[in-house]
Amino acid sequence: LKRTLAKLATRKRLRVAGLMSGTSADGVDAAVCDITSRGVRVVAFHTRPYPAAVRRRLLDLFAGKGPGVEDLCHLNAVLGELFAEALVRLCEARGIGLESVDLVGSHGQTVCHLPAGRRFRGRRVGSTLQIGEPSVIAERTGIATVADFRPRDVAAGGEGAPLVPYADWFLFRHATRTRTVQNIGGIANVTFLAAGGGVEDVVAFDTGPGNMVIDRLVSLATGGRRAFDASGRMAARGSVDGRLLSRLMRHPFVRRRPPKSTGREAFGAAFSDALWDRGRRAGLSAADVVATATAFTAESIAQAYRRHLPRLPDEVFLCGGGARNAALRESVAQALRPARVALTDELGIDADAKEAVSFAVLARETVRGVAANVPAATGAGRPVVLGKLVPGR
Amino acid sequence: LKRTLAKLATRKRLRVAGLMSGTSADGVDAAVCDITSRGVRVVAFHTRPYPAAVRRRLLDLFAGKGPGVEDLCHLNAVLGELFAEALVRLCEARGIGLESVDLVGSHGQTVCHLPAGRRFRGRRVGSTLQIGEPSVIAERTGIATVADFRPRDVAAGGEGAPLVPYADWFLFRHATRTRTVQNIGGIANVTFLAAGGGVEDVVAFDTGPGNMVIDRLVSLATGGRRAFDASGRMAARGSVDGRLLSRLMRHPFVRRRPPKSTGREAFGAAFSDALWDRGRRAGLSAADVVATATAFTAESIAQAYRRHLPRLPDEVFLCGGGARNAALRESVAQALRPARVALTDELGIDADAKEAVSFAVLARETVRGVAANVPAATGAGRPVVLGKLVPGR
Repeated sequence: LKRTLAKLATRKRLRVAGLMSGTSADGVDAAVCDITSRGVRVVAFHTRPYPAAVRRRLLDLFAGKGPGVEDLCHLNAVLGELFAEALVRLCEARGIGLESVDLVGSHGQTVCHLPAGRRFRGRRVGSTLQIGEPSVIAERTGIATVADFRPRDVAAGGEGAPLVPYADWFLFRHATRTRTVQNIGGIANVTFLAAGGGVEDVVAFDTGPGNMVIDRLVSLATGGRRAFDASGRMAARGSVDGRLLSRLMRHPFVRRRPPKSTGREAFGAAFSDALWDRGRRAGLSAADVVATATAFTAESIAQAYRRHLPRLPDEVFLCGGGARNAALRESVAQALRPARVALTDELGIDADAKEAVSFAVLARETVRGVAANVPAATGAGRPVVLGKLVPGR
Repeated sequence: LKRTLAKLATRKRLRVAGLMSGTSADGVDAAVCDITSRGVRVVAFHTRPYPAAVRRRLLDLFAGKGPGVEDLCHLNAVLGELFAEALVRLCEARGIGLESVDLVGSHGQTVCHLPAGRRFRGRRVGSTLQIGEPSVIAERTGIATVADFRPRDVAAGGEGAPLVPYADWFLFRHATRTRTVQNIGGIANVTFLAAGGGVEDVVAFDTGPGNMVIDRLVSLATGGRRAFDASGRMAARGSVDGRLLSRLMRHPFVRRRPPKSTGREAFGAAFSDALWDRGRRAGLSAADVVATATAFTAESIAQAYRRHLPRLPDEVFLCGGGARNAALRESVAQALRPARVALTDELGIDADAKEAVSFAVLARETVRGVAANVPAATGAGRPVVLGKLVPGR
């Protein structure tokens, strides 16, 4: 372990795999990248969908249906197998020797996140739970694995999220241009990188809904036949309803000051179903409702920039599934003018791979002993080294 | 991290804390010990009982009553706090500077153990789940913490148990005397250490019930007023019923060959309640039934030695709560004659502290990169480095 770590901590170039599954629980994103202190080169990336039965069990779990402790214990091991498999198959498919990979950073699958905590002996104890047993990943791949990044930030008084701001700073900072990285997953979040700024200058928070509301509306509109608005085609067919949009923009989350984070509690099925009913009752077409929700995501991003960022960025780099939605992308670009809006692809990081790459970056910092939470973003009391290290072979 | 690990892996003497809570979930055993390659000196030890509400929640959990995933997520953090607190309070009480402790090894609390696994895609996936978040322990104490020792052995095809045999070998091996370490917890288990043998010569398995059956009978006999047979006083007042004892000795677990392990499934409340009814119906006094159960534990140990050990030991060292039961101790000594039977206390390790000390020993091996499972005992496919390392400050 000592020798491995000495190597990991001192080698100039490390090949690190990042493994990730997000709140939508579609499957495992696996990225292999070469990292130096100068930057990251993504060598390979794919998403390996969860088997349908596993995804169903996860969605049941999110919905508060079961599981018992035995199911959870089993699922933790099963996800460990699937995370390992996603990496092994990626390496096979792309002719990458597993032994060339020095380190794995695995986010796992969040199954519970209670950073605000419950009371215990008169004070709040926050907690967060990611599954996807890293001992299984290390045993199947033979590679030292860092996992469980969030609990240490929570233990230090933080929200345990967002954790990508450090990676965004590492990947995308620029000496003379002020940039934001705008992730549009289920929820949308921004990382603000002041020109020439250090990690301590990073500002990051959730801006509001990303694709979550749009996806749900598309599913309602198509009787479940479609799960998302491919390339934004449905939104493009509809018109934004100004009155409904202003109503949406009065949502308390949009006005709240950072640090702030949100999720299914605020913008889940209940919110979207109510929006659908209201729009339809007002005589809007399905496409109009989707177009309005798309504008809501774009406007809530723009509003967040105007109200809560130190200044407006020169450049905005989009990532996450929403970056592939042309209607949304254009809507964001229009709302953020005159900033230039592009995809992180332009900077060498595939917009879909960015999240997995981020956990590769964070794992490297763990073995280097670098604190990689951003206390201003998570609310933690101090910078902490994140994660747990499982030895390889 | 690298510097810390280099220090941890190369320093001749390490001060390591071991934290443990067993299947009875009474509370947290905390031991501080100084470890060199020559041996272990226990500096301090205490048990800090769980708050009643926490213990109740754990017992409910063992009984299959709840909890939901949110409860488990919360309980994981709460137990992290309690494990940290057990160490902090021990150090305060004994004037030990926390900063003098180099490393923590925390077993955590097992809440689920399914090493035989459930089927997933046509093959069995084993799993095991310990809670007591080590990120919380590391953050509260500032000390690097190794935890989650069992999942890696399970990932390597093992039962994830027993893990103490390596520690027993480290602590108690002798050049010219063949020894066993006989732990009598809820379940009883033996570690056989051949004179001058290496770790690869260790034989270890569960011998059968320890205190589990006795405790339950005492609880039935006293209407729940007593939880165990203090010093074996109740057994001493009764007589062993020979017919009932021979019947008990025909239990299939007693005859099965190692590797083998058992638990509440075989010797839990259902087993004890049936034994109680049978004994009382046959006209035995409560004390007679307890005496007979005590003899069953002793005889099943002796039988295991005769049938399943390479040879009989010269010396037997007892540890675990059952070592404090005089009736049981004498019964074991008689059954194992002419071996000398003593407590591990004689070798410098308090019989109650031995389990916690073992996880301190295992944590030290983790940071040294030493594989500390005993494949012959766990059934693992290969020796593996156990545990996950969480950085200190």
